Amino acid sequence: MKVTVCRKEHFNAAHRLFNSEWSDEKNSEVFGKCNLPNYHGHNYDLIVKVSGEVDPKTGYVIDTKILKQIIREKIIKKFDHQNLNLDVGEFGTLNPTAENIAIITWQILRKSISSALDLKVILFETERNFVEYSGE
Amino acid sequence: MKVTVCRKEHFNAAHRLFNSEWSDEKNSEVFGKCNLPNYHGHNYDLIVKVSGEVDPKTGYVIDTKILKQIIREKIIKKFDHQNLNLDVGEFGTLNPTAENIAIITWQILRKSISSALDLKVILFETERNFVEYSGE
Amino acid sequence: MKVTVCRKEHFNAAHRLFNSEWSDEKNSEVFGKCNLPNYHGHNYDLIVKVSGEVDPKTGYVIDTKILKQIIREKIIKKFDHQNLNLDVGEFGTLNPTAENIAIITWQILRKSISSALDLKVILFETERNFVEYSGE
Amino acid sequence: MKVTVCRKEHFNAAHRLFNSEWSDEKNSEVFGKCNLPNYHGHNYDLIVKVSGEVDPKTGYVIDTKILKQIIREKIIKKFDHQNLNLDVGEFGTLNPTAENIAIITWQILRKSISSALDLKVILFETERNFVEYSGE
Amino acid sequence: MKVTVCRKEHFNAAHRLFNSEWSDEKNSEVFGKCNLPNYHGHNYDLIVKVSGEVDPKTGYVIDTKILKQIIREKIIKKFDHQNLNLDVGEFGTLNPTAENIAIITWQILRKSISSALDLKVILFETERNFVEYSGE
Amino acid sequence: MKVTVCRKEHFNAAHRLFNSEWSDEKNSEVFGKCNLPNYHGHNYDLIVKVSGEVDPKTGYVIDTKILKQIIREKIIKKFDHQNLNLDVGEFGTLNPTAENIAIITWQILRKSISSALDLKVILFETERNFVEYSGE
Repeated sequence: MKVTVCRKEHFNAAHRLFNSEWSDEKNSEVFGKCNLPNYHGHNYDLIVKVSGEVDPKTGYVIDTKILKQIIREKIIKKFDHQNLNLDVGEFGTLNPTAENIAIITWQILRKSISSALDLKVILFETERNFVEYSGE
Repeated sequence: MKVTVCRKEHFNAAHRLFNSEWSDEKNSEVFGKCNLPNYHGHNYDLIVKVSGEVDPKTGYVIDTKILKQIIREKIIKKFDHQNLNLDVGEFGTLNPTAENIAIITWQILRKSISSALDLKVILFETERNFVEYSGE
Repeated sequence: MKVTVCRKEHFNAAHRLFNSEWSDEKNSEVFGKCNLPNYHGHNYDLIVKVSGEVDPKTGYVIDTKILKQIIREKIIKKFDHQNLNLDVGEFGTLNPTAENIAIITWQILRKSISSALDLKVILFETERNFVEYSGE
Repeated sequence: MKVTVCRKEHFNAAHRLFNSEWSDEKNSEVFGKCNLPNYHGHNYDLIVKVSGEVDPKTGYVIDTKILKQIIREKIIKKFDHQNLNLDVGEFGTLNPTAENIAIITWQILRKSISSALDLKVILFETERNFVEYSGE
Repeated sequence: MKVTVCRKEHFNAAHRLFNSEWSDEKNSEVFGKCNLPNYHGHNYDLIVKVSGEVDPKTGYVIDTKILKQIIREKIIKKFDHQNLNLDVGEFGTLNPTAENIAIITWQILRKSISSALDLKVILFETERNFVEYSGE
Repeated sequence: MKVTVCRKEHFNAAHRLFNSEWSDEKNSEVFGKCNLPNYHGHNYDLIVKVSGEVDPKTGYVIDTKILKQIIREKIIKKFDHQNLNLDVGEFGTLNPTAENIAIITWQILRKSISSALDLKVILFETERNFVEYSGE
C-alpha cells in the first residue's frame, strides 16, 4: 500500500530576479518590481512529499522526524536568512525564481531520499504564488 | 523540466441552486438551504495551476503577473460581486454548483493560456467544500 | 481569575449595501460594487468572546458546547443561507454592513449570555476585511 | 466531464506509537516522544476527495451534504474524542501512525462511496505533518 | 513607545476533563465526550504576548529568539507529547480545561519574563475554541 | 456605537538588523542570523485597525475601500519589494525590527486617518512572530 508523507518547513530569504545577459531596461521590463537592485524577500513555505510503501513494522513510509532533519540539514541551513543570489552558489548564474528554487531543492533532496521513494516539492513564495515540481 | 505554477485569486458572489425542470418541492428536497429563493453567497477562492517547461531565459513557466492579469480580466471581473444566476450568462440555465463554476472557469481560461501548458483549477466554495477540474 | 473564552462559527449569506433615502447614483458612488442590485455574498466567520471568572468546579468560564449552541440557535439559524436584506428583519431598513451585522449580532447574543460575563464579537466579511464590537 | 469534490472534516483523538513485538528500548528509540506511555493527541484534519462525472440534472458529482454525512457517520463518530489504540478496534494491533489511520479511513469510506467514483484521503496529524492515500 | 511582541508556539498533548469530587454520571453529564476515560488530545497553539518599551539600542521589546527559548524551555518541554492529567503535576487535581491550561501557562511564564513587561497568553485548543488570559 | 474596522494588506521586503554604533561581533552576537550582511526578507502581513462611531447614513466607521487605498498609497508603495535598510529613508539609521516597522507604519498612517478615529497596527514578520502598536 503506497502512501504519500508530507512535511512542511519554511525559510526566510532575500532575492532579486534578473538575467545577466540582458540590459537593465529589458530586465526591468520583464521582471518589474522583482528586478529592483537592492533585493526584496519572502517567507518561503516548503512542502516535501515522499511516496512509497508503508513499512509494516513501523507503520511509516518515512519517519517524519528523519524527513524533517534531512530538509533542515540540506535545504533550510543553506537557504534560511540568506541572499539567494549572493550567498547560495546554485543561484550564482541561475535566476532564483520560485520555479528554479523548487528544481534546485528537489535535486538536492533527491540525493538524500531513498530511490525507492518518489519525491515532490511544493514551494510557496507567497500565499498566492506557489510552484510544484516532481522531477519530470 | 516541467514545473506547475499556481496562482490564488478570489471573488465574492451570490447564487442559488435549482433545476428549472423540477418542481419547487423536488428542488427543495435535493438542494436544501442552497435552494432558498432569495440567494445566499460565498467568498470563492480560486487556484489556477499551469504546468509546462521552464523558460531558461526567464526561469518562468508563466509570469505570475501575467497569469494574475488573465485570471482577473477573464474571471474575477465577470464573477466578482455578481449574482451568478442572474448576472452571468453561462449560468442562465446551468446550475451554479461548485462543479459547474469550476468547469466554466476552466473553459474560459483555457482559451487564454497557451496550449503548450496544462491547466487545472481548484475552486473553494467554503474552507471545507472545494472542487478540482483539469479538463478531463 | 478572569479568562476570555472564544468560539468561532460561520455562515454564508447574500447582501447588498444601499441607503433607501439616497438616489441610485449616490448609492452607486458611495457603495460601488457592493451596491449592485442582484446581491453578492460572503462566507462570514464569527468569533464570539465571553469574559468572566473561571468556575472552580468545572474549570470553565462558559462551556463552549453551550456557547456553540447559543450562537447556532440565535445567529447561525437566522443568518445562514439567507439574503440579509430580504430575509432578516433587522436589516429591513438597516444597511447590512459588517459594522451593522456585528452590532445586531452582539445585541442578540447579549440577551442570551449572563450579564456577569463580558461579550465581544469579531465578524470577518472576508479574510482581509473584519470588524470588532463590544457594546461600547 | 470529471470533477473532484473535496470535503474537510476533523476529529480530536489520543494515540501512542509502538510495535508490540519490540522491546521498550527499541520502541523508544524508533518512535521517540510519540512512544510515551500515557498517550498524547492531535486535532486531525481529514480531507476526502471523490472524483467522477458531473450529474447533468444536479450539477453535482456527489452532494457534499451526503458526503459530509458519510464521513461523520463512518469516521468522525468512530474516531472523535477516542483513544485510537484503546477504543478503535482496527488499531488494536495496527500502529496508529498517520499512514495507517489514512489507510483505515480510506478502506472504511470505500464501502460507502459508489465504485463509479474514485476516492482519496488526506490526513493532517499537524499543520506540518500530513499523509495522502488513494488505495493504490 | 510601548509595543506588544507576540510569539506563536505549539504542543500536542492528551487530556480528559473531570471533577474528582463528582460521580461518573455527573462528570459525563457536564463534560460529555471530553470526559471519556481513555483520554483524547489536541494540537494546542500557544500565542504569548509581551508588552513594553522598545529598547532604542536594539529596536526590540524582547528578542523573539529569547522569548521562543523561554516558551520552549518552560512550557513546550513540560506539556508536549504528555498526558496533561497524568504527566503534568499542576493538573494532578486541577481540571485541564483550556482556561486552566492558559492560567498555569501564564503563571509559569510570568516568573521568567521581566516584571517591567506585561504578559498575556492565548491558547487554541482547536481552531474554533480558544481562550485568553492576562493575569487579571 | 463604537466599532473597530480592520483591513489586512501585505508587502514583501528585504532587511537586516544591526546597530551602526556596535562592532560586527556585538551585532552578530545580539542579532544572530538577522544580522547577516547580504540581507534576508519576509512576506509582511499588516493589519490596520480603525475604531470609531458608525455613521448612520452609510453604516460604516470608515469605508474599507478608502482604508485600503490609504494603506496601499502610504505604506505598501513605500515598502513593497524594497530593501528597508537601503531604500526606505526612515530606516537609514533606525533598525528595521518588527517593532520599529510597526511604529513607523502607525506614525505614517496616523496623518491620513481622521483624529476622531483610534488607530492600531499589527505587523506579522512571520506567521509565528508579530507585533502590535497603538501609539501609546
